[in-house]
Amino acid sequence: MTTAHPAQRPGRPGYDLDSLLAVTVTVFNDKGYEGTSMEALSQRLGITKSSIYHHVSGKTELLERALARALDALFAVTTERQATSGRHIDRLEYLVRRTAEILVAELPYVTLLLRVRGNTPVERRALARRREFDLFVRDLVVGAAEEGDLRPGIDPALTGRLVFGMLNSLIEWHRPRTGGSAEDLAEAVLRLTFEGMRRR
Amino acid sequence: MTTAHPAQRPGRPGYDLDSLLAVTVTVFNDKGYEGTSMEALSQRLGITKSSIYHHVSGKTELLERALARALDALFAVTTERQATSGRHIDRLEYLVRRTAEILVAELPYVTLLLRVRGNTPVERRALARRREFDLFVRDLVVGAAEEGDLRPGIDPALTGRLVFGMLNSLIEWHRPRTGGSAEDLAEAVLRLTFEGMRRR
Repeated sequence: MTTAHPAQRPGRPGYDLDSLLAVTVTVFNDKGYEGTSMEALSQRLGITKSSIYHHVSGKTELLERALARALDALFAVTTERQATSGRHIDRLEYLVRRTAEILVAELPYVTLLLRVRGNTPVERRALARRREFDLFVRDLVVGAAEEGDLRPGIDPALTGRLVFGMLNSLIEWHRPRTGGSAEDLAEAVLRLTFEGMRRR
Repeated sequence: MTTAHPAQRPGRPGYDLDSLLAVTVTVFNDKGYEGTSMEALSQRLGITKSSIYHHVSGKTELLERALARALDALFAVTTERQATSGRHIDRLEYLVRRTAEILVAELPYVTLLLRVRGNTPVERRALARRREFDLFVRDLVVGAAEEGDLRPGIDPALTGRLVFGMLNSLIEWHRPRTGGSAEDLAEAVLRLTFEGMRRR
């Protein structure tokens, strides 16, 4: 289902932390974090377990670093000028576009993040940060409604979840090589949720 | 994150296949299918492994039966009269409503289905049936476009994925006790994707 980066094929000696993480995340996504042992990881990487411990303290740290990569990218957008000033509907549009870019650019990391279930403290912290992001989205929808840019009767929290649920679904079906660009995907999501598909 | 059915609390002696499956599915959803051993399952159920084997041949059969429950419910809709006759946009609307009902009614089973990754033959068969369902949806969007009911420039396959991606996202955030009804959720999805949120 996933392919290792050509430069990080198992058996190739020598990883830095980034390339180690890149392979680890594909294994976590294939087998699940709980279903992945350090033993299985060392086999897939083609290096010994002690070589892994040279980089990180263990599986927990690998998960934490992988999740941080996705979360940091997503949260960086929430402080950008176009997400924090101007009409709220435009901020929302901007956030959808930038999130699509991050989903496509960081697909394996965001996939891991979106599949976190909360079985460990690291996972629960990631879920808490996801909820923070959801609140940022909800507030944009609230602002857009207050500025009169939305149809009446829109539920802000539900709408935020649905729009980002649609966007996030691309982790399930987007194929990096053959799928559309992040711009095309963002455009499709925005047209569908902002204008609707029905001819009037 | 999930709760056992009150009548099937671990330690309670005696399961039929349905109640066994209900608990199993919550364990699979919590820990992942690969991360769940028969040992862990027997502990959560409060019965011995051989009692489980009295009902099924093993973990694979449990997965297969749980996935079949979700898939059979979803495919049953595709043969209903309102999904197979009338204008295609109305069939699509009907399919969204019925799918929302199934998602809410069979939440743990559909959650399991939507998280399947394809590591085993049973999982790959489930993924193949999901693709069949996606094609049914795509054909409805194609039909609606041909009947002139959609805005121009709609990509049928992408639109189908996005609408059902939005709908399926409810497995991530819907809370059975406190969340809205299936009707309310379907209504929100339909308003957003058919009419759009932007005031015009």
